[in-house]
Amino acid sequence: MSAEPNPQLEQTRPLGVAMIGYAFMGKVHSNAWRNVGSFFTVPAFEQKVLVGRDAAQVAAAASTYGWSEWTTDWREVISREDIDVVDISAPGWMHAEIAIAALEAGKHVLVEKPLANTLAEAEAMVEAARAARGKGVQSMVGFNYRRVPALALARELIAEGRLGTIRHVRAAYLQDWLSDAESPMTWRLRKDAAGSGALGDIASHAIDQIGYLTGQTVLEASGVLRTFVTQRPGPSGLEDVTVDDAAWATFWLTGDMGASVEASRVATGQKNSLQIEVYGTGGALTFNLENLNELNFLDATAPVREQGFRRILVNEPEHPYLEAWWPQGHIIGWEHTFTHQIRDFLLAINSGEEPSPSFEEGLQVQRVLAAVEESANNKSTVIPVHQSVVAGSASQMQGA
Amino acid sequence: MSAEPNPQLEQTRPLGVAMIGYAFMGKVHSNAWRNVGSFFTVPAFEQKVLVGRDAAQVAAAASTYGWSEWTTDWREVISREDIDVVDISAPGWMHAEIAIAALEAGKHVLVEKPLANTLAEAEAMVEAARAARGKGVQSMVGFNYRRVPALALARELIAEGRLGTIRHVRAAYLQDWLSDAESPMTWRLRKDAAGSGALGDIASHAIDQIGYLTGQTVLEASGVLRTFVTQRPGPSGLEDVTVDDAAWATFWLTGDMGASVEASRVATGQKNSLQIEVYGTGGALTFNLENLNELNFLDATAPVREQGFRRILVNEPEHPYLEAWWPQGHIIGWEHTFTHQIRDFLLAINSGEEPSPSFEEGLQVQRVLAAVEESANNKSTVIPVHQSVVAGSASQMQGA
Amino acid sequence: MSAEPNPQLEQTRPLGVAMIGYAFMGKVHSNAWRNVGSFFTVPAFEQKVLVGRDAAQVAAAASTYGWSEWTTDWREVISREDIDVVDISAPGWMHAEIAIAALEAGKHVLVEKPLANTLAEAEAMVEAARAARGKGVQSMVGFNYRRVPALALARELIAEGRLGTIRHVRAAYLQDWLSDAESPMTWRLRKDAAGSGALGDIASHAIDQIGYLTGQTVLEASGVLRTFVTQRPGPSGLEDVTVDDAAWATFWLTGDMGASVEASRVATGQKNSLQIEVYGTGGALTFNLENLNELNFLDATAPVREQGFRRILVNEPEHPYLEAWWPQGHIIGWEHTFTHQIRDFLLAINSGEEPSPSFEEGLQVQRVLAAVEESANNKSTVIPVHQSVVAGSASQMQGA
Amino acid sequence: MSAEPNPQLEQTRPLGVAMIGYAFMGKVHSNAWRNVGSFFTVPAFEQKVLVGRDAAQVAAAASTYGWSEWTTDWREVISREDIDVVDISAPGWMHAEIAIAALEAGKHVLVEKPLANTLAEAEAMVEAARAARGKGVQSMVGFNYRRVPALALARELIAEGRLGTIRHVRAAYLQDWLSDAESPMTWRLRKDAAGSGALGDIASHAIDQIGYLTGQTVLEASGVLRTFVTQRPGPSGLEDVTVDDAAWATFWLTGDMGASVEASRVATGQKNSLQIEVYGTGGALTFNLENLNELNFLDATAPVREQGFRRILVNEPEHPYLEAWWPQGHIIGWEHTFTHQIRDFLLAINSGEEPSPSFEEGLQVQRVLAAVEESANNKSTVIPVHQSVVAGSASQMQGA
Repeated sequence: MSAEPNPQLEQTRPLGVAMIGYAFMGKVHSNAWRNVGSFFTVPAFEQKVLVGRDAAQVAAAASTYGWSEWTTDWREVISREDIDVVDISAPGWMHAEIAIAALEAGKHVLVEKPLANTLAEAEAMVEAARAARGKGVQSMVGFNYRRVPALALARELIAEGRLGTIRHVRAAYLQDWLSDAESPMTWRLRKDAAGSGALGDIASHAIDQIGYLTGQTVLEASGVLRTFVTQRPGPSGLEDVTVDDAAWATFWLTGDMGASVEASRVATGQKNSLQIEVYGTGGALTFNLENLNELNFLDATAPVREQGFRRILVNEPEHPYLEAWWPQGHIIGWEHTFTHQIRDFLLAINSGEEPSPSFEEGLQVQRVLAAVEESANNKSTVIPVHQSVVAGSASQMQGA
Repeated sequence: MSAEPNPQLEQTRPLGVAMIGYAFMGKVHSNAWRNVGSFFTVPAFEQKVLVGRDAAQVAAAASTYGWSEWTTDWREVISREDIDVVDISAPGWMHAEIAIAALEAGKHVLVEKPLANTLAEAEAMVEAARAARGKGVQSMVGFNYRRVPALALARELIAEGRLGTIRHVRAAYLQDWLSDAESPMTWRLRKDAAGSGALGDIASHAIDQIGYLTGQTVLEASGVLRTFVTQRPGPSGLEDVTVDDAAWATFWLTGDMGASVEASRVATGQKNSLQIEVYGTGGALTFNLENLNELNFLDATAPVREQGFRRILVNEPEHPYLEAWWPQGHIIGWEHTFTHQIRDFLLAINSGEEPSPSFEEGLQVQRVLAAVEESANNKSTVIPVHQSVVAGSASQMQGA
Repeated sequence: MSAEPNPQLEQTRPLGVAMIGYAFMGKVHSNAWRNVGSFFTVPAFEQKVLVGRDAAQVAAAASTYGWSEWTTDWREVISREDIDVVDISAPGWMHAEIAIAALEAGKHVLVEKPLANTLAEAEAMVEAARAARGKGVQSMVGFNYRRVPALALARELIAEGRLGTIRHVRAAYLQDWLSDAESPMTWRLRKDAAGSGALGDIASHAIDQIGYLTGQTVLEASGVLRTFVTQRPGPSGLEDVTVDDAAWATFWLTGDMGASVEASRVATGQKNSLQIEVYGTGGALTFNLENLNELNFLDATAPVREQGFRRILVNEPEHPYLEAWWPQGHIIGWEHTFTHQIRDFLLAINSGEEPSPSFEEGLQVQRVLAAVEESANNKSTVIPVHQSVVAGSASQMQGA
Repeated sequence: MSAEPNPQLEQTRPLGVAMIGYAFMGKVHSNAWRNVGSFFTVPAFEQKVLVGRDAAQVAAAASTYGWSEWTTDWREVISREDIDVVDISAPGWMHAEIAIAALEAGKHVLVEKPLANTLAEAEAMVEAARAARGKGVQSMVGFNYRRVPALALARELIAEGRLGTIRHVRAAYLQDWLSDAESPMTWRLRKDAAGSGALGDIASHAIDQIGYLTGQTVLEASGVLRTFVTQRPGPSGLEDVTVDDAAWATFWLTGDMGASVEASRVATGQKNSLQIEVYGTGGALTFNLENLNELNFLDATAPVREQGFRRILVNEPEHPYLEAWWPQGHIIGWEHTFTHQIRDFLLAINSGEEPSPSFEEGLQVQRVLAAVEESANNKSTVIPVHQSVVAGSASQMQGA
């Protein structure tokens, strides 16, 4: 987690960056690009061009978010010689086409999660990433919560053995923006556009964290999906909701470890509550994204008389990423995780080391999601998770 | 929830109470009998006789806990004319025989949970309870957490419609006394003696609460059971652990409602953490037994600007059971739930109204547990829960 | 903190106990007497007689709370040969007369806090206690919060040096039962009957804790007293409130230590919130009486990366008093502190060791309260606290 | 709190901004200038020039933080025609000279808190601000915590009467960076450079909040200042610490309201804990800067049965400033308060309405600090706070 300047840096010019997408994710990725250099020592780069479908809107967004140019033609951007990096924040169904084209054009690619809407697309992307990797072209999928300092610290503590053998993980991602049955229809509630509902959108973060934190791989899954509100008002009347409002899954992983994940968009009063609890023989950890600067850690090797979950305010210079920010106790926000992500991506491009999470890791999450869905369609019967042949990537993640 | 004296009380003498069992549960039940009359207006009764297997120990316990007499022969006690009430705190495998005999002898019976170790025993107990009920003899199973004031308040709020339509419940019962793999073998870890592990011992409380709070009935269940430490040290070497260390279950209930339950005895750092979260269209509730005087309530009908989970310190005279205790903010403890249970049981005996939870309700929990176990033995495939024919009892619970 | 049976116990008959007062404090003291023997190994005793002014009420209370006899004449009780212990829960203005008479009659005396309503009375009581002590007659003042297990643990940790040198303590006792300006007049709001308001009633607990936890003595005090509602409705019209609604004080203590105390009966939403924070060079502690089973401890000698306040659920057999109660995580309530107090008082009577807090310690709290009041009457100017000549008692407290 | 574009905006060119100071405060102010336009609709401006004393360092900072030019000569900058706004983040002893010069040169001025190191300087600044105001030149002092959304919401709720009549405020600002007695000497610990210690640096924030939230004015103050570590290691041996490590104050305010403030840099385990509690007849509020996205609100007009402090996650579009940021539950950090401050300052420049807090308000805080210090030097005797003649400003703040 070093922020040292890289002496091998021998760029002849700043990296040229293009971003595709200017909606919610485009706004937050732009923020990260605009600020990363003010806090971290990273290779020189330029926010060159923003790409979007609506000319007027993308022009305005480029101006607001600090991009020098804008265009509606992503293919043209990918062919430009002065573009070195492509950041894909477009909707999931566009990921595969753009990412594969960009990689083939020799551009480093960061793609928002989920990797793709279908397993087939995700597999094609992995293939492209591998081919590009041989030519020094990097790729990464944006599970930004790996860059929450508290979760990065959690991973360190687990890797150091502070939790002993992990027995089980209890995770949930709870939101409530669909609690109201009158809340209108959106593309996010159509399976063809969104892939899935709470499962793919938010449970995916929890599933990625389970692997990231513990280093274990899901072997089998059982799941349930439910849609509580099956029709919602659209512009011209009620429309069918074709994705899940809530998802439940239990997993069995390598290392004789269990895990449960619950995801809901109808958990009234929970706004953005990714909760993770890790229970081991030597200690335990709990975390909640609504208080993302805090990690609760219990050291079970302490005398029983003085054991307890300690609230670590993960805001010290000693903590991951924090040296760059403010003095202790001056908390950071949700968006900072994206700044950290860009920082790590840029450092990987610079050093030539493969960034993590790789497309293979993104594919692994997709496979787990697919197994949950298959189980849900088969009365929750346990489904084995097909493993990627590329164990290399996962083990590398471990040693990071 | 009235504590008014009952004007119809026409007892000719105080009720004679016998208790069977003097271990952990015997200690806490004795405490309830010893104190209930100092706080609540209840029918007159006498702590007559304590029953146990070891003469020396039961004699000492009787003296310490305030019972006038002791014996090792429960059959003799049940035949005594001066005994009107039998409180069964003996191990689960003894419940059926004693309870059925006592009911047949015309004694009011309170039996600790779980109702029995097997479904067959539980069904026989229900049959005996029904027969006795016709003769004015009452019976009750001891899911004491129904008498936590915060949970009683939760039930009231839900019954009043404050949560709107409930979408799903998230529950867990987490303990850690088996985290240490060197923790010794006990009868609680043998299936023949204990019935099951975390599932029957603690998940059962969570399952009962789901029904109690929401008034809905479990229709189908999917489950997973895991034993992380399969052998533990006994007096003469390693012995096989034949029950689960942890259990996961998902349920579908009447009212188009979902629920999840997680139970663990290896959740390091969690001491006695029964957590319940209820999410409805109009609001939400959360609770944790380690802070049992508190209920968190979110009213989703308030303006968004001022919505939030409010921590209600359930310690006001306005709250269930609290008028009897101390001024506001002077919190009560875990044992008080048993005092409330005895109070309600005595009032039911006095009034002739059927106490709740009935044996039928106890049986319903057993059936859910059995379905979870069957699912766990069948790759988590969803199993329908056989319903009691006596829907009457459940609906009565609703209207209480 | 040993609960071992005392082999020197050579009582010829059970101790005879009389209690004076049957209102709120009488109810909770009775509860302690009724139950202490069921949980702790203590000398044999009998709840002989309850004393109060209203014959009908005291008779009913005696029956409800487990006392064999009742009377309205405390002088007669003190003269009885079969009475060995007198527990004084009557209002503060009666303490001195009864306690001095009882001590002179050779009875062991436990008196509720505050020791007395005036310094002169308190000093006379101390004189009587010293005289009696020479004859083996014990006395104790009832600062029951010293028997909160979490605070007893706090004291142990501090005494072991886990907090290093203590710099300052931040304490508050916040209630809200006078928030409503229409709340009626009571004797507690008249200076002649109650002595003072929030200062004597609740700030006194905080002040006692500061000495108890840290072992330091208040040298000087500055204070402010405020009455927000100066008249309240009485039976025949508005009456003057002659005590404070809220009090603020800052202290300088031995050991180069500072402290602040804030007490309020108009802190809306705070029910019984005695908050204590202790900051030392080696660590810190925080506590809140509304969650009295918890102590938050920060060990500043741990690596910065993993420092944080840990929530210790003070419910383990390893914790003070807890071995007697329930398994871990099964929390106890407010009233249990009185049971612990009776236990310690009985053990002291039995062993002949002087119980703590002594009348001298009670007097020291009174002197601090008097200094705060004097300062408040003199524009908050710092007032030195007159020290008891009997430093012996205080230092003994230290070594307990 | 409107973010609407101002139709009267008739700037002929973007506002030219200069900032003086590039250390901690310079870094965070720069961040605000760099990002405000990406989130809020504000008048066009340019980050023109950064000013500092060390040429090499200021050059590097200008490049890192997004300023087009740099210089070491603030006087030259103030004389430039293309500079319209001067942001003063230099140390406190430089504020008066620069601010007065800039105002006289017709530049809008934002100055970091505290307004100045001495009352005389602060008064001169107020005079300059008034003179400039007549010419349409704006000035503002940087109490950034007024722009914490949760505190802005708190102020709104209070202004709407949701707390009824406020009785007292309990505030503290607790840090621990001086807990270690070996922590080295810095200019912040010398009275000549820093003015005061915890009092001026952090208690000042608490004092400003009391006025901001309640709209009341401090009439009199009593205080205590303590220095626990009187010498600290400097480059050439031990040096005298000449400011306070901790400060305590009690206040009496208009509106028959009390307040207490405690500030410490030796509160081990507290990192940046500005705690504010407001108690009124109709409700209460609590806040802690370490969880700055949360406000706890108790509505005492709700039925007692359901009263409780509700944790409002102040992250909804309905909340102050939040519409500009991320979806609900995606929390913001400490630095965002500065972005809000710049936004409000720019909008005030644009609209011609006087921004708040004005220099007069900054002076009022200084006067309260001076009274605390005078009281501390006089055995805590209550000292009246000299009032500004310009009540106009304060009352205007009220109506904002």
